[in-house]
Amino acid sequence: MKYCSQCGAEVEIKVPDGDNRPRHICAECLTVHYQNPKMVVGCIPMWEDKVLLCRRAIEPRYGLWTLPAGFMENGETSQEGAARETLEEANARVKVEALYTLFNLLHISQVYLLFKSRLMDLDFGPGSESLEVALFAEQEIPWDEIAFPVVHETLRLFFEDARRNHYELRSGTIVRLSDNPRRYHTQLL
Amino acid sequence: MKYCSQCGAEVEIKVPDGDNRPRHICAECLTVHYQNPKMVVGCIPMWEDKVLLCRRAIEPRYGLWTLPAGFMENGETSQEGAARETLEEANARVKVEALYTLFNLLHISQVYLLFKSRLMDLDFGPGSESLEVALFAEQEIPWDEIAFPVVHETLRLFFEDARRNHYELRSGTIVRLSDNPRRYHTQLL
Repeated sequence: MKYCSQCGAEVEIKVPDGDNRPRHICAECLTVHYQNPKMVVGCIPMWEDKVLLCRRAIEPRYGLWTLPAGFMENGETSQEGAARETLEEANARVKVEALYTLFNLLHISQVYLLFKSRLMDLDFGPGSESLEVALFAEQEIPWDEIAFPVVHETLRLFFEDARRNHYELRSGTIVRLSDNPRRYHTQLL
Repeated sequence: MKYCSQCGAEVEIKVPDGDNRPRHICAECLTVHYQNPKMVVGCIPMWEDKVLLCRRAIEPRYGLWTLPAGFMENGETSQEGAARETLEEANARVKVEALYTLFNLLHISQVYLLFKSRLMDLDFGPGSESLEVALFAEQEIPWDEIAFPVVHETLRLFFEDARRNHYELRSGTIVRLSDNPRRYHTQLL
């Protein structure tokens, strides 16, 4: 951020009165521009013992598999956002159930909220951001071709819970390793 | 938003190519400025059968009681944010436990994440945003002086669960009534 979105003047970075961390502040109109984490909402769409995954038609991670998820929009609930992303990426209609994972992605200031959900029918197919959409049982999951660590971890926990038929909210933090930014470590809370 | 925070030119509102909703787009550098919901993170700080509340020293709802909570910051987990707000508003140290409520506040594009937590000790007191901080058992809660519907609903559910000693994640939407913007309706999911 270089300019004030309210008046167009240049912004400075400094700690506002009564605050304790640096913010972008307009030098002219004094508006403080806060920057906060964004929510990514999505589904774990279930059909019998299978889960629906989408193969990405966009960067990053083109060609790899993921759960349908994306940025939550203003004007929708997190559950509505999760269902909307599933419709957009997989043309699939779901009944959204309980929140299953809450993951903090510190290195990109995102919080993932992934919900268990039930496919309403088997009428699905790739949206414009997907190359392919398919159902996978646990032993069929392409573990080496999963797009994001948060999805890999969610699927691992999900099938662990599925085996004992007891699901509980899983929460944690995905930490990028400082000595190798392509590798990640998961801290479960 | 009137000006581009990247180049300072004026922004227009239109639907970007490949998108399906209006966004603020810079007429010069073509940057799309997305606006997404913000997360409010906080604690339900417990001590025996009591919960810690803060009486607000700031607007809105000056003088009314609330749970310690505030906007999540970049660079922290949602649990760390909840603990930080509790330290800032009540000078209280907590052990953050499971997520207890996930509430969508559609009318202000906020998602509340409130965590069960345990006070580490009884050394607490008002921070700069609080007039007073105190512990309340269920029958002592000032129900008519609670600052926000999301806090009222969280406390109601929490003590309901406390009575049966079984807590589960509660999720819902707080809807502002169209015929009276000072009244709200809660939809539990």
